[in-house]
Amino acid sequence: MHKRNYPLSKVYGLLEPGPVVMLSTVRKGRANVMTMSWQTMMEFEPPLVGCVIGDRNYSFATLKATKECVINIPTAEIAEKVVRCGNSSGRDVDKFEVFGLTAVASKCVAAPRVGECYASLECKVVDTRMVAKYGFFVLEVVKAWVDRAAKEPRTLHHRGNGVFMVAGETIKLASRMK
Amino acid sequence: MHKRNYPLSKVYGLLEPGPVVMLSTVRKGRANVMTMSWQTMMEFEPPLVGCVIGDRNYSFATLKATKECVINIPTAEIAEKVVRCGNSSGRDVDKFEVFGLTAVASKCVAAPRVGECYASLECKVVDTRMVAKYGFFVLEVVKAWVDRAAKEPRTLHHRGNGVFMVAGETIKLASRMK
Repeated sequence: MHKRNYPLSKVYGLLEPGPVVMLSTVRKGRANVMTMSWQTMMEFEPPLVGCVIGDRNYSFATLKATKECVINIPTAEIAEKVVRCGNSSGRDVDKFEVFGLTAVASKCVAAPRVGECYASLECKVVDTRMVAKYGFFVLEVVKAWVDRAAKEPRTLHHRGNGVFMVAGETIKLASRMK
Repeated sequence: MHKRNYPLSKVYGLLEPGPVVMLSTVRKGRANVMTMSWQTMMEFEPPLVGCVIGDRNYSFATLKATKECVINIPTAEIAEKVVRCGNSSGRDVDKFEVFGLTAVASKCVAAPRVGECYASLECKVVDTRMVAKYGFFVLEVVKAWVDRAAKEPRTLHHRGNGVFMVAGETIKLASRMK
């Protein structure tokens, strides 16, 4: 995959469809990645993303301490790896190594990108007011990478308990909505 | 469609895939409905949903004042109505009447459900701390209705500018994730 810089103004279109994402972090040289579905866009530009991470997740403390992460968007081709990342903890295993994921250096944050994902959004935490109560972090996307060859990516959408809907056909309607 | 009561513990599975939703409200006898994509689950049970509504939307002031709404989930069959609701304002038109939507009485809130949607979640606003800054409301789902015949609903997922991905095939992987 050849990933290129992607305009921040178009980032909302990647997350608005609601794909499962892989959140990568690093702390003291130890990279980790978790599977996540509880996120939403909050602003177009600069792109803000709100996400919920339970405090039992190993990534929770890392994100709180480092205030940096990458949101990576996988497709059905690596569904197995996505589920494995969701079923294990960075406390016990080096998920990049065990699941054969490639840690690619980011440009604006220390956390690595996941090479196997078609899109990666480098993020910084900008608001932690709702972290204590809900585990809700507000992130600003500071740099975006996308594989431009992926026009209709077969993203994963979790219905619960390991059941995923895979992105289907695309339709276009006349709309003034952004 | 025959919609029945749906367990609150299973509500997350309806919103986690990231569908476009229709948010209905009512104030002083005037019902309205808006199209929305910026929402996320925040808690399993009781189900909490966070959603972003811009303050220029007619529904913003109504939701802030009444603290009640219904999140309705449409499918591709009514894509045209979904887009029309997104391209017009309740300030100018009665969307239920003009777009041929059926307002069905809710059980726990004054806002009506949208009869043409396969699922409806009656909600109350429980946290407004982030409304001023981000238009971010935290809602608690207090009652859920689903058409049980809709096993693999063809939900809509907005990529931006009127381009929608329609829910495709379902895959199941062995997972311990909820």
